Amino acid sequence: MGLWRRYPRVPSVNDFNNVVASSGSMIVVSNRLPFVLHRNKEGKLIRKASAGGLVTAVAPVVINGNGLWVGWPGIHLEDPTEPIPESDPSDITPTAGLKSEKVVAVQIDPLVFDSYYNGCCNATFWPLFHSMPDRAIFKAEHWKSYVRANKEFADCTMRALKSLPTTQSDMPLIWVHDYHLMLAANWIRQAAEDLDLPCKLGFFLHIPFPPWDIFRLFPWSDEILQGMLGCDMVGFHITDYCLNFVDCCQRNLGCRVDRKNLLVEHGGRTVRVRPLPIGIPFERFVELAEKAPKLFSTNQKIILGVDRLDYTKGLVHRLRAFEKLLENHPEHIEKVSLLQIAVPSRTDVKDYQDLKEEMDQLVGRINGRFTTPNWSPIRYIYGCISQDELAAFYRDAAVGLVTPLRDGMNLVAKEFVACQINIPPGVLIVSPFAGAGETMHEALICNPYEIDSASEVIHRALTMPEDERILRMNYLRRREKLNDVNYWTKSFLSAMGSLVTQEDHDDVGSITMPAVTLDDFDEYLAKYIGNTHKLALLLDYDGTLAPIAPHPNLAIIPAETKNILQRLSNLSDCYIAIVSGRNVNNVKEMVGIEGITYAGNHGLEILHPDGTKFVHPMPTEFHDKVGELMRQLQEKVCRDGAWVENKGALLTFHFREAPVHLRPILEKEAAAMIENAGFTAGRAHCAIEAKPPVQWNKGRASIYILRTAFGVDWCERIRIIYVGDDATDEDAMLALKGMAATFRVTNSQITKTSAERRLPSTDSVLTMLKWVERHLSRRKPNLDSSSFRRGSTQLARQAVQMVMSMTNTTNHTETYQADADAVSNNSQ
Amino acid sequence: MGLWRRYPRVPSVNDFNNVVASSGSMIVVSNRLPFVLHRNKEGKLIRKASAGGLVTAVAPVVINGNGLWVGWPGIHLEDPTEPIPESDPSDITPTAGLKSEKVVAVQIDPLVFDSYYNGCCNATFWPLFHSMPDRAIFKAEHWKSYVRANKEFADCTMRALKSLPTTQSDMPLIWVHDYHLMLAANWIRQAAEDLDLPCKLGFFLHIPFPPWDIFRLFPWSDEILQGMLGCDMVGFHITDYCLNFVDCCQRNLGCRVDRKNLLVEHGGRTVRVRPLPIGIPFERFVELAEKAPKLFSTNQKIILGVDRLDYTKGLVHRLRAFEKLLENHPEHIEKVSLLQIAVPSRTDVKDYQDLKEEMDQLVGRINGRFTTPNWSPIRYIYGCISQDELAAFYRDAAVGLVTPLRDGMNLVAKEFVACQINIPPGVLIVSPFAGAGETMHEALICNPYEIDSASEVIHRALTMPEDERILRMNYLRRREKLNDVNYWTKSFLSAMGSLVTQEDHDDVGSITMPAVTLDDFDEYLAKYIGNTHKLALLLDYDGTLAPIAPHPNLAIIPAETKNILQRLSNLSDCYIAIVSGRNVNNVKEMVGIEGITYAGNHGLEILHPDGTKFVHPMPTEFHDKVGELMRQLQEKVCRDGAWVENKGALLTFHFREAPVHLRPILEKEAAAMIENAGFTAGRAHCAIEAKPPVQWNKGRASIYILRTAFGVDWCERIRIIYVGDDATDEDAMLALKGMAATFRVTNSQITKTSAERRLPSTDSVLTMLKWVERHLSRRKPNLDSSSFRRGSTQLARQAVQMVMSMTNTTNHTETYQADADAVSNNSQ
Repeated sequence: MGLWRRYPRVPSVNDFNNVVASSGSMIVVSNRLPFVLHRNKEGKLIRKASAGGLVTAVAPVVINGNGLWVGWPGIHLEDPTEPIPESDPSDITPTAGLKSEKVVAVQIDPLVFDSYYNGCCNATFWPLFHSMPDRAIFKAEHWKSYVRANKEFADCTMRALKSLPTTQSDMPLIWVHDYHLMLAANWIRQAAEDLDLPCKLGFFLHIPFPPWDIFRLFPWSDEILQGMLGCDMVGFHITDYCLNFVDCCQRNLGCRVDRKNLLVEHGGRTVRVRPLPIGIPFERFVELAEKAPKLFSTNQKIILGVDRLDYTKGLVHRLRAFEKLLENHPEHIEKVSLLQIAVPSRTDVKDYQDLKEEMDQLVGRINGRFTTPNWSPIRYIYGCISQDELAAFYRDAAVGLVTPLRDGMNLVAKEFVACQINIPPGVLIVSPFAGAGETMHEALICNPYEIDSASEVIHRALTMPEDERILRMNYLRRREKLNDVNYWTKSFLSAMGSLVTQEDHDDVGSITMPAVTLDDFDEYLAKYIGNTHKLALLLDYDGTLAPIAPHPNLAIIPAETKNILQRLSNLSDCYIAIVSGRNVNNVKEMVGIEGITYAGNHGLEILHPDGTKFVHPMPTEFHDKVGELMRQLQEKVCRDGAWVENKGALLTFHFREAPVHLRPILEKEAAAMIENAGFTAGRAHCAIEAKPPVQWNKGRASIYILRTAFGVDWCERIRIIYVGDDATDEDAMLALKGMAATFRVTNSQITKTSAERRLPSTDSVLTMLKWVERHLSRRKPNLDSSSFRRGSTQLARQAVQMVMSMTNTTNHTETYQADADAVSNNSQ
Repeated sequence: MGLWRRYPRVPSVNDFNNVVASSGSMIVVSNRLPFVLHRNKEGKLIRKASAGGLVTAVAPVVINGNGLWVGWPGIHLEDPTEPIPESDPSDITPTAGLKSEKVVAVQIDPLVFDSYYNGCCNATFWPLFHSMPDRAIFKAEHWKSYVRANKEFADCTMRALKSLPTTQSDMPLIWVHDYHLMLAANWIRQAAEDLDLPCKLGFFLHIPFPPWDIFRLFPWSDEILQGMLGCDMVGFHITDYCLNFVDCCQRNLGCRVDRKNLLVEHGGRTVRVRPLPIGIPFERFVELAEKAPKLFSTNQKIILGVDRLDYTKGLVHRLRAFEKLLENHPEHIEKVSLLQIAVPSRTDVKDYQDLKEEMDQLVGRINGRFTTPNWSPIRYIYGCISQDELAAFYRDAAVGLVTPLRDGMNLVAKEFVACQINIPPGVLIVSPFAGAGETMHEALICNPYEIDSASEVIHRALTMPEDERILRMNYLRRREKLNDVNYWTKSFLSAMGSLVTQEDHDDVGSITMPAVTLDDFDEYLAKYIGNTHKLALLLDYDGTLAPIAPHPNLAIIPAETKNILQRLSNLSDCYIAIVSGRNVNNVKEMVGIEGITYAGNHGLEILHPDGTKFVHPMPTEFHDKVGELMRQLQEKVCRDGAWVENKGALLTFHFREAPVHLRPILEKEAAAMIENAGFTAGRAHCAIEAKPPVQWNKGRASIYILRTAFGVDWCERIRIIYVGDDATDEDAMLALKGMAATFRVTNSQITKTSAERRLPSTDSVLTMLKWVERHLSRRKPNLDSSSFRRGSTQLARQAVQMVMSMTNTTNHTETYQADADAVSNNSQ
């Protein structure tokens, strides 16, 4: 991850010369602030600066742009209002300029924080994202803490955003960091939209992003993806991780994606996904290496390993490979030593204690086997070392051995080459499972799992001809010098369209997915529908066929959509049902097509194309209650534009026309009233529906409709497409899951859906209908449409009776307007 | 995996009615034979038949087609020639007809077998392919045993193949099964080709195939892929596994692939990859369910789990979900019980013992918590049950709970629906991480890791309305009835183009990848080459530019290739070097283009475009030895068409014209002679090269050439493409790894290469050159070609001197034919 890496404390002139600037103020949101707080002996809070490469690169952008930093200060304060101290006057790190008014210190209940940080972050995401699923613990409590913590970070970020001066030209830029904060962006986006505070949101993940087969194990994987997709741009170290993420968005969420341009469509927006390999403060390491005294007093070649003691780092494998080297190539005995620095980490966790124990034993055993009077094969330092020492080790080592089992990037590899200023230089070995292995092409690649071959790679490094060593190190150093951490910050700003002096500013900001086209449906629908089966289209009305409007009467079906439905209704192998929350007569009027099925009140009333009508039997006691509830609602909550619609079996309370700030109050009051009356309160788009408490919904209704039209063996005879945009459509998507192609129309940020695919708008529903028409028109006509519809009448009657008998109720209210022959006249 | 699953012993009429036939004889190769041998009390070997679904489906195809079965008989025989007994007359299973002469019992040293089976198969591939890399053990010894065992299976398969009568029309079909035998196909293919015994090879994997990020951890993953690609068709349960495999072939081996049609190009062949979801003997389960007595004497609803006690099955998660159900929905207490059958497995392995212990404790704890005087929540049977019992359980359970953490297919899910003959039926719950979860769409899907939500899915299943239950079970049963295990066998034969009565027989057999086109290079090269850098093309001659011929003089460069090289040589930003094992003057003559660089004798002699020549300093003592060795070789091994080529610094002994059976002898004798003379013997295409023992090869030579042409900082100024087909080219691919785009031209079966991409033929090299020409021609001309070449002369001299000083030798033999200005005249 390397986010909070301890970097050399000595700032260099380069740190301040080459300052990157963003066009708007930047708010950085990260788990930790760029300093930690602790109390001195007098109990006074003081700052201890972190001077990591990232902090050094990003802090000037924040400070110069008058931005802010949001994060946990490393201490739980009993009084959360206790002021953050200013930096010590002697502090010369880049964060010294970060005034305390520009810092938002996040405070989270210590128990929640522990469960969020040690639980969800370190015991779940860390191993899972490193593709070690067996080590991952999945606990609902940890997840809840993660959600709470992310919400708290989002709230603090909103405080930061509100404190910025509003300018029209340059939007503030919010940069959210790492796997601790994958959900925060969504709340920030929503809150910022509600408050009309425009901003840009970017995310960067400092660890690997796993393949779909691993990622999908996480029970709340959908939420994670949607959290990240709350941003305008999501960055990873390398393209592999980007592709894994895009793949997950497509397969988990059913998003449309563009693999070539790395775009994901979500909630009506296009999110850019970008590889942004992080770099190091290269020049600072060169300076350190130039100044550091010589520490090795031996002529032996040193193989150097520097790692946090973590199970992802492959330390045990590395020691074994070194042992094998001495075994297979005894010519290195007394000529070569392995210097392994292991920095203690998470020492209170059992996995880490076990690893420490295994390392201790292994070092002892190997040394015991090969040590001679004047030479020990392994020098193992368990602890921290100073930056000067580190630079000297990097500089004078013959081989840098960086062999993690999995690693997002690995900065040791980069620091090593920066410090390799001797001529001739040494050799870098990296694992293909680190981000560095994918980007530092000229390093020798070594699979840490293959002990024999790993030892041969080390041997090759130790015996590599000078010209090849010079060549490879030149390439490596040149790349890292160019692509240092400032370059990384610039790349991020550039990807956000926020880099000052950037020419293509507007272009970058405006990349969007192309509109949904016919081609988008080829893969999913063509495979599903095939060429032989009849097709049943079950469609919601509002927000699916007709765009949402301020008043139901204004939600009019576009002429093109109506025309295509009309033509489809004339095809013999296409059956259409409109399933709506409206009153059934009203929805029929709004659509205005004869010869198709209409279901109103979420399926409580169904009007078949042959004219028969099904009405779900409502318990008689609710008949009177509907009128009473209607009256109550009108009296008490029909104010400020809110009103009640009487749909017969149910009532809908609309508050879309009420002012935004009043809506939550109206919603709450109405919901309470409805529930007190013994009805179920169902949330819809700026509306609440009062339903009698019957076990009936769009799902049950859809199954009923299909059985009525096609008989009890309908499932063997037809293919089904269901499209809806409403929460009530989820019942149908759930009931039909596995048996229908399902689309949820949505452009909102967070939508958990049972649908298999998403569509961004009513326009894209129209495109889908066009695809269906084109597909069906290619078939040979083989059925007379009127006979098809007429035939279904008998089945309808049987089925209605069957369902009625299953609902175990005696007061049937179904009415047969039995005029079956009228249907063939209707089908135009 | 389910390959050796114990199926009902009672064969049904359906087993023999619906027999599938292949057009050629079938040889099945699987780890186990379709029966096991054991000794009775008298020490006599007797068969014990396995009557698994697969055996039932496949055995008739083998028997009726007069085919054979190759496998381990379940016992290590002290005398491997001990005859296999015939089946007992009372045996009425389908394998009874398999005569012992039609069985090849594989015998492997018991220690090797243990390391192969318990080591590599069960301790490495099992967890790795189930995406549980932390459980996987990677040991070189296990891998060696796996290779040996697979070689033994391949040898036995060849014995089987040779025993078949040769017919021209219908090729024998060899079907290799599962993760135990992923390497065997390659040896079979090679041996069959050597013996001119045409056959078709198919493979089916019964477990999941993991994503690339997991698969590539296996140190010998390249060999596995190439072993599988030895087949004509490779089958997996579901499309996801196919895509994972295709992805690995592209990313690990650099193969060209077609994701849409699931094709992989390898070794000049096109391998088909197909999803073939395995089925069960559906009708037999229906019969069993119809006959089985009622066993549950309770009105409680039974939730049924049936699993081998394996860590992939998610048993612990399942018990926890059931506990949560009782906690959150106490209405199920005394109404519902979980019956969990756990079949003992690998009981001598610690992981499995630990799991057993955890299960025992958990069952005890949950029962202790919820048991009432008349009810226990969990009935846990650790042991085997009879097929009749199983069918009764399947039939009468209200919920089938199949929630593995990962599973190739899972046949319990299919057996459950086959036995669900009651009306109304129960509900199937499957994990999305099983193959069954991807194909049995109408089951309820349940992520086993999410305990809370898993308990809600169980609750939904227990309370699902009858109509939805009927609907879903109808769909599920219909699919499994159609797609039973006989259908699976047919699908396999059809995918192999070997199904009798199949109409598109020839079509299926002849699917091939389209020839390499310009587009194939877009992704790889365009990204690499960019628009600004000069390009250096380093090309081998024989087998790369010119097709291999029986005699070096006949290996002529095609006119089109020569023309394009000629045109490229005139472009200012393209530098060309031919790097060959031939004598440098000879290769220049064969290519016949002026103004480019020629390296002969694998780089020992280099002729620069400016006319300067570099000759690697050979130790003087070898000058005389070359003549002496030449004389010896001519005297002793130049027979049967073999001959020696004198290339100055080295000698090449050619035996391509000798008869195939004599080649190994000639090769061995010549190699011994060369090594005795103090030279290095290097294998090439039907040739051995005698090289003086200097540390110089095509890799060192390539670096030298580039430095000579572009100066010491060449690596910052140019982009490089290296193409070669020979083992000696690997030195260059290794040395340039990470710094050049590298292609290995190969159409052989097993080639471990350091190149990043493969090309099937010299034709495709020509296509690549066309791509380069098109790409370079689009650039704006910005350099005068002659000045570019002339400028390099000075650099050449410096660089030569530098290299010479690095090789630490005093007897320089480089000769400068210093006529730099001649170059500009040469360049057309």
